[in-house]
Amino acid sequence: MGRVTERRRVIRIRDGAVSTRPDTLVAEEPLEIRLGGKPLAITMRTPGDDFALAAGFLVSEGVLASAGELANIVYCAGATAEGGSNSYNVVDVRLADGVPVPDITLERNVYTTSSCGLCGKASLDAVRTTARWPLDTSPDTPVRIEPATLSALPDRLRAAQRVFERTGGLHAAALFTTDGELLDIREDVGRHNAVDKIVGRALQQGQLPLTSCVLMVSGRASFELAQKAVMAGIPVLAAVSAPSSLAVDLAVETGLTLVGFLRGTSMNVYAGEHRLALSAAASTG
Amino acid sequence: MGRVTERRRVIRIRDGAVSTRPDTLVAEEPLEIRLGGKPLAITMRTPGDDFALAAGFLVSEGVLASAGELANIVYCAGATAEGGSNSYNVVDVRLADGVPVPDITLERNVYTTSSCGLCGKASLDAVRTTARWPLDTSPDTPVRIEPATLSALPDRLRAAQRVFERTGGLHAAALFTTDGELLDIREDVGRHNAVDKIVGRALQQGQLPLTSCVLMVSGRASFELAQKAVMAGIPVLAAVSAPSSLAVDLAVETGLTLVGFLRGTSMNVYAGEHRLALSAAASTG
Repeated sequence: MGRVTERRRVIRIRDGAVSTRPDTLVAEEPLEIRLGGKPLAITMRTPGDDFALAAGFLVSEGVLASAGELANIVYCAGATAEGGSNSYNVVDVRLADGVPVPDITLERNVYTTSSCGLCGKASLDAVRTTARWPLDTSPDTPVRIEPATLSALPDRLRAAQRVFERTGGLHAAALFTTDGELLDIREDVGRHNAVDKIVGRALQQGQLPLTSCVLMVSGRASFELAQKAVMAGIPVLAAVSAPSSLAVDLAVETGLTLVGFLRGTSMNVYAGEHRLALSAAASTG
Repeated sequence: MGRVTERRRVIRIRDGAVSTRPDTLVAEEPLEIRLGGKPLAITMRTPGDDFALAAGFLVSEGVLASAGELANIVYCAGATAEGGSNSYNVVDVRLADGVPVPDITLERNVYTTSSCGLCGKASLDAVRTTARWPLDTSPDTPVRIEPATLSALPDRLRAAQRVFERTGGLHAAALFTTDGELLDIREDVGRHNAVDKIVGRALQQGQLPLTSCVLMVSGRASFELAQKAVMAGIPVLAAVSAPSSLAVDLAVETGLTLVGFLRGTSMNVYAGEHRLALSAAASTG
């Protein structure tokens, strides 16, 4: 199962010079997540931490909130036609006795209900009503973080990225304390998978909600990533690149601190600035 | 419907100085794609070119191959609970008379069948058997491209990206001729959506298969993007960043020319080098 990277032949062209050599690529394989034996979702992911990925996915969807609600996760043997060999690409999650199995159809991991329109606002409402741990929106929040601490995170994220160095092909997500201490880092060909692996591992270790943590992602901040932070009770999401409009709207509605373009000593704060130690200049501008 | 960007308030921190100002963000909204009235998929996308997105998605899934197979695409009015107002986030695709409506369940846009195991090989087989226009794998292929032509594409892509400049939050996909002429460019918060919009527009204009074209993407080359190129009959996929292992495997199996790390005068060719004008050094190395 050490299939995080794979080797392939590549023809390199450099200023007209052509050479052939082996190259290291990030591995990508489908993973089917089943709940109680019933197929729920398929994601293209980098193999590894598959149980954490499945658990974290179910946290994001509001199905799981604690390790006690989880009975077990297994790879489905016999999931291939070739005589029962195990592809390690199908996992089945069994909930603990008494935990209701939700009747959900998930397509592309987006909330939708038949009773309301499909729009950004409906997506926001769904997260807000499903979140198990509402974020603290009080100005007197005990969770505070220094901008200088945030500024140190991108370098720590990059320093801890092992696979990216070899392949250049991975997204990373990392969990930090509000003092900037690295708690966990995961790399995956899909950015949502990297976050699910972080959250799922925390669930397995009984650490949800992650109320004193910062989630840092290597790329952009989409609605989906903001949703995953909120569902895990993470109060601060920081991204190297830009957020989308709907990610900002979700952050404003739920009280999530959303930081984008975190580069050097610069950053943009789109919501939840009450957790940042800022000078009074912030309110004038 | 000109909701490609939206304005939000942002707190900017630059070397300790704090200011508040409006910022331009890339818009993100859910889009539900229905086929004959039946919900098929939901994707988070940047509004605009929604009909092209829906059509291109169905090309990728092997449902549509020509404009004649398409009856029409409409926004579903009354798709919200508030008295029939139109969110412009639900489109319904109707196929022409006689075109079979496939019985497909799509989750995260990944092929799966109940009769075979879920693994990379099964994903490759599904694309190969579904592709309407097998790519030309002959060494005497009429489609040839100069490495120097490829090297010019990233700058042309970036020059044509209008929204990225303002938001920093978009993926881009562009269609070029093998002479490097820009045919189309689309930007979207999701890279797969940008490609679907390109392919869907080509379908609407009766231009499929895109046998003499190069598809260029601003980021990484995943399995999903390689699949979309193959399904549209595009023989060359070029990416600024790294491909995944499964994207390379698909390119090798189908004869797709796959170029990664296309930067300056450098590039890596992972498959389909028979379409590139290379010196004999390539086969030694």
